Amino acid sequence: MRDFSDSLQWLSINTATLRVQWPLDRIIQECARRGITTISPWRDQVNAIGLDNAARCLRDNGVRLSGYCRGGMFPAADGPGRQAAIDDTRRAIDEAKVLDAPCLVLVVGGLPGALAGNALHKDIVRARFEVQEGIHAVLQHARDVNMPLAIEPLHPMYAADRACINTLEQALDVCDALEGPLDPSGARCMLGVAVDVYHVWWDPKLEQQIHRAGRGRLLAFHVCDWLLPTRDLLNDRGMMGDGIIDIPRIRGVMESAGYQGHAEVEIFSSADWWRRPGGDVLDICVERFHRVV
Amino acid sequence: MRDFSDSLQWLSINTATLRVQWPLDRIIQECARRGITTISPWRDQVNAIGLDNAARCLRDNGVRLSGYCRGGMFPAADGPGRQAAIDDTRRAIDEAKVLDAPCLVLVVGGLPGALAGNALHKDIVRARFEVQEGIHAVLQHARDVNMPLAIEPLHPMYAADRACINTLEQALDVCDALEGPLDPSGARCMLGVAVDVYHVWWDPKLEQQIHRAGRGRLLAFHVCDWLLPTRDLLNDRGMMGDGIIDIPRIRGVMESAGYQGHAEVEIFSSADWWRRPGGDVLDICVERFHRVV
Repeated sequence: MRDFSDSLQWLSINTATLRVQWPLDRIIQECARRGITTISPWRDQVNAIGLDNAARCLRDNGVRLSGYCRGGMFPAADGPGRQAAIDDTRRAIDEAKVLDAPCLVLVVGGLPGALAGNALHKDIVRARFEVQEGIHAVLQHARDVNMPLAIEPLHPMYAADRACINTLEQALDVCDALEGPLDPSGARCMLGVAVDVYHVWWDPKLEQQIHRAGRGRLLAFHVCDWLLPTRDLLNDRGMMGDGIIDIPRIRGVMESAGYQGHAEVEIFSSADWWRRPGGDVLDICVERFHRVV
Repeated sequence: MRDFSDSLQWLSINTATLRVQWPLDRIIQECARRGITTISPWRDQVNAIGLDNAARCLRDNGVRLSGYCRGGMFPAADGPGRQAAIDDTRRAIDEAKVLDAPCLVLVVGGLPGALAGNALHKDIVRARFEVQEGIHAVLQHARDVNMPLAIEPLHPMYAADRACINTLEQALDVCDALEGPLDPSGARCMLGVAVDVYHVWWDPKLEQQIHRAGRGRLLAFHVCDWLLPTRDLLNDRGMMGDGIIDIPRIRGVMESAGYQGHAEVEIFSSADWWRRPGGDVLDICVERFHRVV
């Protein structure tokens, strides 16, 4: 397993971790000042400062991307709604290209209307079909511009409102169904997965499915921690080391399956980390990355 | 699928649903008054009125059990701790026998110490081994007194602190490992599963695994609903019909796999149902049972 204890080469900061404190350009500058050369930005944060400005700011500061968040949210009330999600994801692919991201992360969506608190139906099987259709509809464009898509299985507690793909096994089944089985050469695929320890740490088939994914489909690795108790379903993620996820074990499995990319810190935390000064948060991310990732 | 619209024969009330409003004897009386002849009590509620008193109260009111909650919580800090959990589950088996329950529900436990907020280690694989060892250690006693054990896979959001068995597939793997594969005659097994829609509704392999379980291993069926938004990880369950779980679909799968038992209403709800008068809650359980289960 790679030694992270004295280099920041493989640390990436997902910009949601600092979304409350700073705009994207400041995040980029503060990362660069600390020797963090990789981030993963969210679209709304990019749009807030403008795509070209974001690209320039990255270039000027020598900061690159480990991924771009996010496309998806495919299930919708009707055909025009589904088409809008497909079009929007195609635009996200183009933006990812402008920013030179190595992949676009897909959060695939759940029951239509559920995120607004009013699900239009209860048929999760149908939602899953619509997700497959949505990914299929954007895959050719991803191929055309050479932008891999990383399906992120979300924790089952988000199955209704955010993503009805909830295990690595299920995500990999979708990859295989749409792209055919993994290239035996281990070449990087156009369709793969983003493995976030928060979403998958509990999965009894985690190790097996990470190996199934292999180097070709392991496109991203996100870290944070599961707190005891967890007080909010969405925004109570912990800093690495403060919870019960055995992060080094999972990273070890990832690497033994061929993953050699970044560990991307993504913490949503309305009661704690979003309330601290951004510089403190970044410094602690660095310290924990060295010590407990 | 059985018609529940004009009979209460297959309704059971899990007594946690009314734990704040009434002691167990009152719950039994109020159920009987409404023609509800089946409940599933929790041990602490039984102990609060005394085991013999509970048994007499059930008899006097013509109320029977669909299950008894609960044994398990096997992983512990040390050998004596694990032995205490095994001994306690054996006592639960004996109590279930006194109350003439058809099965004892097992909530298997998670990382030792996690429920108190201070996990002693992060090794969920080890916790899962300890769970298997714990079930193995009580299985012979269950056989001796003929009390089937129903492993309840809990939602993955409880993997750390309540149960590290989180999918039906995983629970059934444990059943097969400890008892051998399912009796092809479909005879009722000594080891099976409790299927609670709240815990499993999201599972992409739900239908497949319910059929795998079959009549022999489908020992209990619990209903409530998943609310949007869900405000608390433990105590924000919804009344059937108020959330997004397609309960009739899941009951249909259960019945097509051979299940012919009760639908047991189990609602933990600190902000809503535990604050309402017990009689109102029971009346609404009845109405929803007829209409949306």
